[in-house]
Amino acid sequence: MSSRFEPTGGETRYEGKIFEVRRETFRHEDGEEATREIVRHQGAVGVVAHDGESIWLVRQPREAVGAPDLLELPAGKLDVEGEAPLETAKRELAEEIGKAAEHWEHLHSFYTSPGFSDEECHVYLATGLSDAWAATDAHERIDVEVRRLAELDAIIDEVRDSKTLIGLLELRRRGFAD
Amino acid sequence: MSSRFEPTGGETRYEGKIFEVRRETFRHEDGEEATREIVRHQGAVGVVAHDGESIWLVRQPREAVGAPDLLELPAGKLDVEGEAPLETAKRELAEEIGKAAEHWEHLHSFYTSPGFSDEECHVYLATGLSDAWAATDAHERIDVEVRRLAELDAIIDEVRDSKTLIGLLELRRRGFAD
Repeated sequence: MSSRFEPTGGETRYEGKIFEVRRETFRHEDGEEATREIVRHQGAVGVVAHDGESIWLVRQPREAVGAPDLLELPAGKLDVEGEAPLETAKRELAEEIGKAAEHWEHLHSFYTSPGFSDEECHVYLATGLSDAWAATDAHERIDVEVRRLAELDAIIDEVRDSKTLIGLLELRRRGFAD
Repeated sequence: MSSRFEPTGGETRYEGKIFEVRRETFRHEDGEEATREIVRHQGAVGVVAHDGESIWLVRQPREAVGAPDLLELPAGKLDVEGEAPLETAKRELAEEIGKAAEHWEHLHSFYTSPGFSDEECHVYLATGLSDAWAATDAHERIDVEVRRLAELDAIIDEVRDSKTLIGLLELRRRGFAD
């Protein structure tokens, strides 16, 4: 059965640049102790940015999954201390696709893999787009890909990334379709 | 820009029960070397199981994210050597909700967090349900939650787990709605 629990201890087993691995113990309300290995990650944001005709996506190499050009939402990690997720989303939209947006709406916040990771990803809808300038990270290999919203179903069938599927399927739920 | 790359080396930095952490190096086609810290995970499956009126979900404690009863699809890890994802899905459906299904359809395969993890999750649609018996893992705290498909939009708004959002939003795309 599902159960409330409280943390009872833990130790860091790996400390990396973008996540750490902890071995932590918990006591459930029935007294049972559980040990979990957990990836602790600062979280991330993704942005569905469209103007009613086009949608702005990005392609980039993802070494972890062996993909040279994975199709994704403009996105980024919550790696600036004290910056709220919506502010990170605005910054990443400018840095990755060179756009600002007049209207912002929160779509979903979800755990990418709650069985072993605490990474939470916040997905926003950005409309009322205008050009914006922002310094881009020279180390990021990002290609902007502008697609037609009219082919949203075909784009969804092509996507292999969780935040991108969730953002585009949510857009589809709101009535954008072939 | 996006870029092809090849692996040039790596070492295991943490070896856990359900994942390992590797520090790996890659050489991009322009000659640049990149180092990545990568969580290597065996992958997982999730199942959207419904009979046209009801949908079968589960609730379980997820210590990693501090949730006592996260709402999810019946699901499981690809932790049996040589077992294909569809077979894992069939086994987990029996173990977690006590059902077999006549019709199976692949909905999506996606990376939960391709920036740092190779975990791939395969989501299936299962219909033509019948009762099945399977041994359940006594260490799993799982409550089955049967919901009405007519409230699919309300369920989607409640979900915080990537595979569950993707499965239910895909079902919504196929025409199930309030």
